[in-house]
Amino acid sequence: MIVVLKPGVPPEKKEELIRWLEDKGVSTQCFDGRFQTAIGLVGDASRLDVDQIAALDEVEKVCRVTEPYDHSGRRNHPEATVVRVGDAALGGGHFAVIAGPCSVESEEQIVGIARAVKAAGADLLRGGAFKPRTSPYDFSGLKASGLEMLRVAREETGLPVVSELMSIRDLELFDAVDVIQIGARNMQNYDLLRELGKAGKPILLKRGMAATLRELLLSAEYIMASGNERVILCERGIRTFSDNTRNTLDLSAVPMLHEMSHLPVIVDPSHATGSSRLVPSMALAGTAAGADGLMIEVHNEPMQALCDGAQALMPDAFAGLMEKVRQVRGIVAP
Amino acid sequence: MIVVLKPGVPPEKKEELIRWLEDKGVSTQCFDGRFQTAIGLVGDASRLDVDQIAALDEVEKVCRVTEPYDHSGRRNHPEATVVRVGDAALGGGHFAVIAGPCSVESEEQIVGIARAVKAAGADLLRGGAFKPRTSPYDFSGLKASGLEMLRVAREETGLPVVSELMSIRDLELFDAVDVIQIGARNMQNYDLLRELGKAGKPILLKRGMAATLRELLLSAEYIMASGNERVILCERGIRTFSDNTRNTLDLSAVPMLHEMSHLPVIVDPSHATGSSRLVPSMALAGTAAGADGLMIEVHNEPMQALCDGAQALMPDAFAGLMEKVRQVRGIVAP
Amino acid sequence: MIVVLKPGVPPEKKEELIRWLEDKGVSTQCFDGRFQTAIGLVGDASRLDVDQIAALDEVEKVCRVTEPYDHSGRRNHPEATVVRVGDAALGGGHFAVIAGPCSVESEEQIVGIARAVKAAGADLLRGGAFKPRTSPYDFSGLKASGLEMLRVAREETGLPVVSELMSIRDLELFDAVDVIQIGARNMQNYDLLRELGKAGKPILLKRGMAATLRELLLSAEYIMASGNERVILCERGIRTFSDNTRNTLDLSAVPMLHEMSHLPVIVDPSHATGSSRLVPSMALAGTAAGADGLMIEVHNEPMQALCDGAQALMPDAFAGLMEKVRQVRGIVAP
Amino acid sequence: MIVVLKPGVPPEKKEELIRWLEDKGVSTQCFDGRFQTAIGLVGDASRLDVDQIAALDEVEKVCRVTEPYDHSGRRNHPEATVVRVGDAALGGGHFAVIAGPCSVESEEQIVGIARAVKAAGADLLRGGAFKPRTSPYDFSGLKASGLEMLRVAREETGLPVVSELMSIRDLELFDAVDVIQIGARNMQNYDLLRELGKAGKPILLKRGMAATLRELLLSAEYIMASGNERVILCERGIRTFSDNTRNTLDLSAVPMLHEMSHLPVIVDPSHATGSSRLVPSMALAGTAAGADGLMIEVHNEPMQALCDGAQALMPDAFAGLMEKVRQVRGIVAP
Repeated sequence: MIVVLKPGVPPEKKEELIRWLEDKGVSTQCFDGRFQTAIGLVGDASRLDVDQIAALDEVEKVCRVTEPYDHSGRRNHPEATVVRVGDAALGGGHFAVIAGPCSVESEEQIVGIARAVKAAGADLLRGGAFKPRTSPYDFSGLKASGLEMLRVAREETGLPVVSELMSIRDLELFDAVDVIQIGARNMQNYDLLRELGKAGKPILLKRGMAATLRELLLSAEYIMASGNERVILCERGIRTFSDNTRNTLDLSAVPMLHEMSHLPVIVDPSHATGSSRLVPSMALAGTAAGADGLMIEVHNEPMQALCDGAQALMPDAFAGLMEKVRQVRGIVAP
Repeated sequence: MIVVLKPGVPPEKKEELIRWLEDKGVSTQCFDGRFQTAIGLVGDASRLDVDQIAALDEVEKVCRVTEPYDHSGRRNHPEATVVRVGDAALGGGHFAVIAGPCSVESEEQIVGIARAVKAAGADLLRGGAFKPRTSPYDFSGLKASGLEMLRVAREETGLPVVSELMSIRDLELFDAVDVIQIGARNMQNYDLLRELGKAGKPILLKRGMAATLRELLLSAEYIMASGNERVILCERGIRTFSDNTRNTLDLSAVPMLHEMSHLPVIVDPSHATGSSRLVPSMALAGTAAGADGLMIEVHNEPMQALCDGAQALMPDAFAGLMEKVRQVRGIVAP
Repeated sequence: MIVVLKPGVPPEKKEELIRWLEDKGVSTQCFDGRFQTAIGLVGDASRLDVDQIAALDEVEKVCRVTEPYDHSGRRNHPEATVVRVGDAALGGGHFAVIAGPCSVESEEQIVGIARAVKAAGADLLRGGAFKPRTSPYDFSGLKASGLEMLRVAREETGLPVVSELMSIRDLELFDAVDVIQIGARNMQNYDLLRELGKAGKPILLKRGMAATLRELLLSAEYIMASGNERVILCERGIRTFSDNTRNTLDLSAVPMLHEMSHLPVIVDPSHATGSSRLVPSMALAGTAAGADGLMIEVHNEPMQALCDGAQALMPDAFAGLMEKVRQVRGIVAP
Repeated sequence: MIVVLKPGVPPEKKEELIRWLEDKGVSTQCFDGRFQTAIGLVGDASRLDVDQIAALDEVEKVCRVTEPYDHSGRRNHPEATVVRVGDAALGGGHFAVIAGPCSVESEEQIVGIARAVKAAGADLLRGGAFKPRTSPYDFSGLKASGLEMLRVAREETGLPVVSELMSIRDLELFDAVDVIQIGARNMQNYDLLRELGKAGKPILLKRGMAATLRELLLSAEYIMASGNERVILCERGIRTFSDNTRNTLDLSAVPMLHEMSHLPVIVDPSHATGSSRLVPSMALAGTAAGADGLMIEVHNEPMQALCDGAQALMPDAFAGLMEKVRQVRGIVAP
C-alpha cells in the first residue's frame, strides 16, 4: 500500500504518521517528490483499513498495491481453474452452456425444456425454484416442489442442474442441485457466502449490479476462504444511467477477470438485457469476448406468437443460437 | 399501466395482444396516436410483470401508472408516519439524531461515547456488533458481546440503541436493541426483510448502493406487508462514476421520498462520504433538505492527533455540529 | 405522449390541464384507471416540452410515445442506410475496419502505419491531427501539418481517411479527409453539429460518455436535419462506476441502435477500454454483436518491448485480430 | 506519480522500464514490497501520459500524486479567490444568488422578472439567449435580440447579467453580459475554453454530467492558463442510474472542490432536479453545504395555476426561499 501525503505536511506530523503505521505491523519506506511525500508500506498491508488511512487529515490518497484475495486472485494461482460438473467443464479452455427457464413452473414444463436444450447442445439445466423479486407481491417460485421437478428433469436428461439459493435454511433442499447459484442481490450477503464454504458443490456467483470486479473477487474469497474452491463468476449486467436495456452488460469484465483471477467466468445475456431480441447478439458477443460459458433463458410453453418476444428464447431460436455460439467459440478458442 | 405499441403493428396482432392482456385479468382501453397505439390497462395492473410485457415484439415500451407499494407509498397513507423510540421520534415534524461509533470495541468505549453524544444532544446511540465487510479478512464485529456492551451503554445513558442485523439467526440476541438496522448490502435480502415483519421493533432500512427509490420502497413493502409498519428509510449514498467521495450522497432523495412515501427519511453523511472532513457540511445539507433525522459516526478513543481525520467525528466536533444542526432544523421546520 | 396524473387530481384541475395542453396544438384523449388518469396527446406531441409538462404539480409522469428523430430514426426509414466511402461501405450488410494511430506524429509514421493496416485488411485509415485532451498541458495534435501528412498517406495507400474535427473554423483544412469524426466530448456541441449539415462528407459521430441512445440519435438528427444524411454512429464506452477499464463498452447499444435507427453502428474498443490487452476480445465481441464496423488504434513505432502494452496494437497483432474478425463476421453475417 | 508493477516482473524488464521512464525526463525511486515493486517518479511527472504508462504490460496500476492544475488547484493558491461582478461577490466568504428565467422570452418578461428577483434579494440576473437543446426541433433562444433584452433589464435594475455562450463566434454579442456561462455540454469543448482566456469577463463553468471534479478543474485550467483567472465553478447534477430526478445533485462536490481548488463554487438546484418542487430544499441544502452562491430559475408569467409546478419558481416562492437561504447562510458562515 502506498500512502500519498498532502503537500505541506510538516515533518513532525509525517513522523507521527509513520510511527502510527508501523504500530500497525508494517514497515515503511518514504519517497519524497517535489511537492509531496509518499509512504510505501511493506508487510501485511493488504489487510489494513484503507478507508481509515485515507480519511486522515494528512493523507491525500491511498493506493493499494497487493490485493487481499489470496484464493480468488491470480497471484497465488497462475493456472486457470477448471470447474467440472458431471460431464460439463468450465474454465481453462472448457466452455459450457447453461440453459433453461427463469422459473420452474411444472414438471412437464421443466422436463420438456430440459430435453429441448439438451438436444440443442446445452451442458447444464437452469431453473429457479426460489426467486428474488423486487416486489413482495410477485411470484417467488415453487420452492421445494420446484426443486423436486428439477430433480426429475435431471434424471430424465442427465443434465446437471443449476438453481438459485437465497437463504442458508433452504440448503438441505438442494441435494439434487449440482451448482448453487447466488444471485446479484446476494453477492454481498456475507453470512450466506460463508456458509457456502461448506456446501460441497460448485457455486455460481453473480456480480452485483453495483459491484466492482474487486468486490466480486472478495465475495468469491468469502466462499473460498471458508473451504469451497469451486466458484464460477458470472457477469450479468451492471446498473448505469443507460436506460435502453435493463442493465448494461459489461463484457470487458470477461478479459479483466481472466487477468485478475483464475476462476471461470460466464456471461448471462438474458438478465443483463431483459429482452430476448438482444440475447443472441449478446450471447455471441460474450462468447467472442472469451467467456468460459453462457447462461441463457429458454422456455417452451405452447405460446401464442405474441410471446415470441419474451425474455426467454424459444427452443428453436436457442438451437440456432447454439450453432453460432459453437462456431464463434471455435474461432476464439481454436 | 400503459403499453405503447411499435409503429406499424398490424390490427390482428393488436387484437391478439389485447386478448392476451385481458386474459391476465385487466380491462383495456385503446388510444390511437398518429403513428402508434397505446393500450391502457385497468384493474390490478400494478402486479403484472412489466418486464414480460415490455419484452413482447409488438411493444415499444411500458409506462407504469399505479405502483404496488400499498403500505410504504403515500397513496393510501397521506399523513406522515411518526416512528417513536423511547423519547425520540422521527417523521411528521419530529427530528432525531443517531450517533455513535461504527463498531462497538469495548464497554468503556461505547459507554464513554454514549455519554458524550447524549451530552451533545443525540437522541439515539448507534454501534455495530455485526459488521458487513467487503473482505473476509477484515474485523467483522464483536457480535454477542458487542450487543451486551450496547445494553450496558443503554442502561447507563437511557439512550435507545440502533444496531445492524445481518442474519435472522441473530435476531434473538437483539433484545436490548431498540431499532434494527438493515444495511445497504442487505436491502434486497428478501428472506431477511420478510422475517423482520415479525421483529416487533422499528427497522432502519438503508438504501442499497444501486437502488432506485422505487426499489427502496418495495423493500420497505416486504417488511410492512409482513406485519411491521415501523420503517425508517435512510439515504446513505449511491454508487456513481464520481470518485472523490466513497459514494455520492443523493440528497434529492429526501424530498422525493417524502412525496412518494409517508415514512420518515434520515441521512447518513458518514458512510456516504467516508471522510469526517465532509460530514459536517453534508449533515447540515441533509438537515436543510428536510430529513427527519441524521445518523452520524462519533468516537472518543484517546487518539493521537493523527486520527482527527478518521471517518468519525470526535465528540467536540460532534457537539459543535449538533448546535448548527439544531439551528438549521429550526429554519427549515420552524 | 401520455401524461399520467397524480391520484386525486380534482376534475376541474384536470379540465384546466386538458385545455392548456390543447392550446399547445394537440388533441387529447382521457383514460381513467382505478386511481389515476392518463391523458393521451395526439398531434405534433413529439415536439412538446416533456420536462415542462412533467414538472406540473398535477402530473406524476410523462411517457413519450413518438420520438422526434424523423431523420435518424427507423420509423421513416425502415431500410438500413449504407454509407460508402471510397471502396469501403458500412451498414446494410457492409462491414469496414478503420485503423491507425491515435495521433499523427510524422509523415513516416502515418505512411508506415497506413501501409501496414492496409496490408492487414483495414478499409479506412484513422489519425488524429486535432486532439481533445483533458489537460491543457497535454499534446493536442499536429493540426494542419498532421492533416497534410494524412493526405500523403491517403495518396500512398488509397485508403480513405477519418480524422477528428473539433471546431468548425478548421473545416477548410479537412479537404483530404474523407470522414469527419466528432468526438464523444463534442456530441452535444450543437453549433458544430449544425454546421456539419453542410460538410458534404460522412460524419462519424461518437456517443458521449453520458449519452443515452436517444440523445445520440438526436445529435445525429442535428446533422441530418441540417442537410447531411451520411452519419455513422460509434459506441466507444460510457462512464459508469466500474473502474477496471477506462470506460464501460456498452455492446448492447449495437443491436438497440439497429432497432431504433437505420444508420450504421461501429464500435471503438481502443478508447472504451484504454488498454491494448483488452482490444482484441472487445473487437471480436463488437463484431459478434453485429456492429457494421470497428475503429482500432494501431501504431508501428520502432518500440522497445516495453511498449507492447500501450493502448494501440502493433501491426502484427492487428493483422492477427483482423483474421479472426473476418471469421466472426462471416458467422454473424453469412 | 507512482507506478505499481505487476507481481513477478523480471529485473531486466524493470530496469528497462525505469530507463524508459527516465528518458521521459523524470527521476525514479524504487520501492520493493513483498510481492510487487512500485516506482516513484520525481520531476514534471504531472504531465506524463498516465494512460500510456498504465497500459504497459508490466504495469498493474498508476497512482497520480501531483495534479497538473497549477492555476485552478489549491496548491499554488492557498487563499480562496473572490470573484467580484458589479456589487456582487462570490467566494472567500462572499455569497451571491443568480436568478432569472431559463430563457429570455420578451423584454417585458425579463425586465419584470429582473425587478422581482432584485426585490427578493438576488445579486445577479440570469437569462438564456442561446439555448443548448437536446433536440434540433426545440426552441433554441432569441439569440442577439435576447441579449439586447437582457441589456435593458440590466439597465433598469442595475443587476449584473449571466448568460450562456455556446460558440466563440457569438462572443462579440456579449458586451452587456457580465458573466459568461459555459454549459455542462460544453465543459470539454476545449476550443471554446481556450478562447475564453481572452474574454475579459468572469466565466461560470458548469460541471459536465459525466465529469469528475478533476476534469472540471482541468477545464477551468484551460481558461485560466489562457489568461482568465476569474472562473466560478458550478455543480448542477451528474448523470447516475437514479431516475427520480433529472440528474443527481452531488452536494459533496461543494466541500471537495473547496479542498481541491481556491475558486468559488455555486450550486444550480433547478437544472439538477428539473422540478420546482425540489428546488427550495436543494437550494437550502446547497447553502448548508457551504456553496458560495446559488443559481435559481424564476419566472413571473401571468400563469394559470397549472404552471405553479414548472421548473422555475414563481417570484413569491423565490422571495420566501431567499429569506430562508439568508438564514441558513448566516448559520454556516456566521
